[in-house]
Amino acid sequence: MPKTLSDIGEFGLIDRFHTLIREEGIETPGVTIGIGDDAAAIKPREGYEVLVTCDCLVEGRHYLSDRINSVDLGRRAMAVNISDIGAMGGLPLYALVSLGLREDTLIADVESMYRGFFQELNPLKASIIGGNITKTEGANFIDITLVGEVEQGKLMLRSSAEIGDAILVTGYPGQALAGLQILQSSQSPQDVQNHPLVQAYNTPKHRAREGHAIAHSGYAKAMIDTSDGLLADLGHICEKSRVGAKIIQKQLPLSKALIQEAGQMELDPYDLVMSDSDDYELILTCSAESVPKIRSLVASISDVSASEIGRITEAKEKIQLVLPDGSKRPVTPSGWDHFKT
Amino acid sequence: MPKTLSDIGEFGLIDRFHTLIREEGIETPGVTIGIGDDAAAIKPREGYEVLVTCDCLVEGRHYLSDRINSVDLGRRAMAVNISDIGAMGGLPLYALVSLGLREDTLIADVESMYRGFFQELNPLKASIIGGNITKTEGANFIDITLVGEVEQGKLMLRSSAEIGDAILVTGYPGQALAGLQILQSSQSPQDVQNHPLVQAYNTPKHRAREGHAIAHSGYAKAMIDTSDGLLADLGHICEKSRVGAKIIQKQLPLSKALIQEAGQMELDPYDLVMSDSDDYELILTCSAESVPKIRSLVASISDVSASEIGRITEAKEKIQLVLPDGSKRPVTPSGWDHFKT
Repeated sequence: MPKTLSDIGEFGLIDRFHTLIREEGIETPGVTIGIGDDAAAIKPREGYEVLVTCDCLVEGRHYLSDRINSVDLGRRAMAVNISDIGAMGGLPLYALVSLGLREDTLIADVESMYRGFFQELNPLKASIIGGNITKTEGANFIDITLVGEVEQGKLMLRSSAEIGDAILVTGYPGQALAGLQILQSSQSPQDVQNHPLVQAYNTPKHRAREGHAIAHSGYAKAMIDTSDGLLADLGHICEKSRVGAKIIQKQLPLSKALIQEAGQMELDPYDLVMSDSDDYELILTCSAESVPKIRSLVASISDVSASEIGRITEAKEKIQLVLPDGSKRPVTPSGWDHFKT
Repeated sequence: MPKTLSDIGEFGLIDRFHTLIREEGIETPGVTIGIGDDAAAIKPREGYEVLVTCDCLVEGRHYLSDRINSVDLGRRAMAVNISDIGAMGGLPLYALVSLGLREDTLIADVESMYRGFFQELNPLKASIIGGNITKTEGANFIDITLVGEVEQGKLMLRSSAEIGDAILVTGYPGQALAGLQILQSSQSPQDVQNHPLVQAYNTPKHRAREGHAIAHSGYAKAMIDTSDGLLADLGHICEKSRVGAKIIQKQLPLSKALIQEAGQMELDPYDLVMSDSDDYELILTCSAESVPKIRSLVASISDVSASEIGRITEAKEKIQLVLPDGSKRPVTPSGWDHFKT
């Protein structure tokens, strides 16, 4: 019979994690003491600032266990945190994993989730150095604290966009939303796991390498990830930088998969691109002359594109969408507000 | 009508937090960017290592909302994390607070919980610099990541106890367990809130100042907090240091309140002291000649006592309890295994 947490206990599970970390994880330099003491100790590198972020996935809210396999769930939970570090211009170093688990949770599933963590961490030479397991009666949750580093003076904020800046976005925002709708409307979620849009939702790509390179280059002014959706996160930049923005609709990047799916769903693909969506692309602003430099920098790192989608304007303009006929339509970022429905 | 999260939304709640942090929190030096960006950025001090820990309280598992008020819950959630930093010889600097909340959670309760956080953080000049709110359908949870610092070379581990070391413990372990039993057996939990043992459970005292001073002094060898109970955590020291231990029963510290309550519960007070209990005292080991130095050091910081309770022995001795007649009884640390019942 498959083993559950109540069979092997918390300490039994921690032992399994140690084995997994030894076998499949990697060692990151700079850790004085890792898992197995009251806290983890880290020796920060000179000339670097330490970045800390935490983000939590709750079963039933951020994922449905019958619609994502455990490896992908682990990848997703880690990628959303890596994205936050990357959006600050940094790279991840160490993760602390706090799990809330029901007694009937399968050990094999938790181990697969850990494998998903490693799939995201290992390529960046980042490791798991601590954590915590808690029994829960309700929904399982995965709360990850990720520690990273950024070179001093290279920190990328939301608050430093300037009027006249070009606005760039990486990849194809909105794909995760379309993928979620496919998952939700599918009679058998297993059959759609390989659909590119479902993959965009289940295992979103972070852009930490791109974010780090952009920050290092000094070409960009403000940066954020699109974890709340393109419009909502552009809204965060506008709010924090006290500016407005003009988006040129026809310049919004549309993937073939998104166009096709929007047609089937009878939705405007441009609406999907701007909506609340769990993609983890980057939005950044820079001077007009830096646009080609950033585009070629991003292209040199991966096959992801960076599209210029508009300009930063005065605060009083708020956010305007410029339609193909030249007319303007005000658009309001709704944000991803977990409690307002 | 009292406001709930569904009334003001996540961003509304975050705004309240900002106000609370501005009004009641303090500023810790070394933070480049705090709440309101993708990640928090910290400039570590030269000559220090960074400590990171996370611990999670789940409603129904670690607390019952009708048996603890929200301020005390906030204090408790923060104190257990501060204790982990203190047990490594460090002091806390920055907290990231990740909350899982049901829609019907009262705003006033969440604000009170934040006040509890500040009550623990402000005296140590530590601040809240980030976090995350997630809607949950099930049990609420409070997951805190605490970042601290420890002078280089002063890190206190579990793994450095040596044969012949004296074993010291601060305060009165076991009080929290007795307090929990009072809470659980009480018909009206409100009436027992001021009982000293109930307070020991609801708002345990961390010993971070003492732990930091002990580490700084260089007198101690191994250190841990008693979050799993005296015997279980002494067991962690023995396991990691590959040693055994001899506990002299009559030297175990018993508070008057514990003796009285044990009498009423018809329990051996010494069993209570050694059991799994949510106290956050320190266990440490040191050479025999350092005992008076550490005792007077601890006494100079607060009114908490440090009692010498036994000696570190060879691993093959395991853990033995020496009874008043000189006979020995092997005792087995059960640990606090959340899944084994």
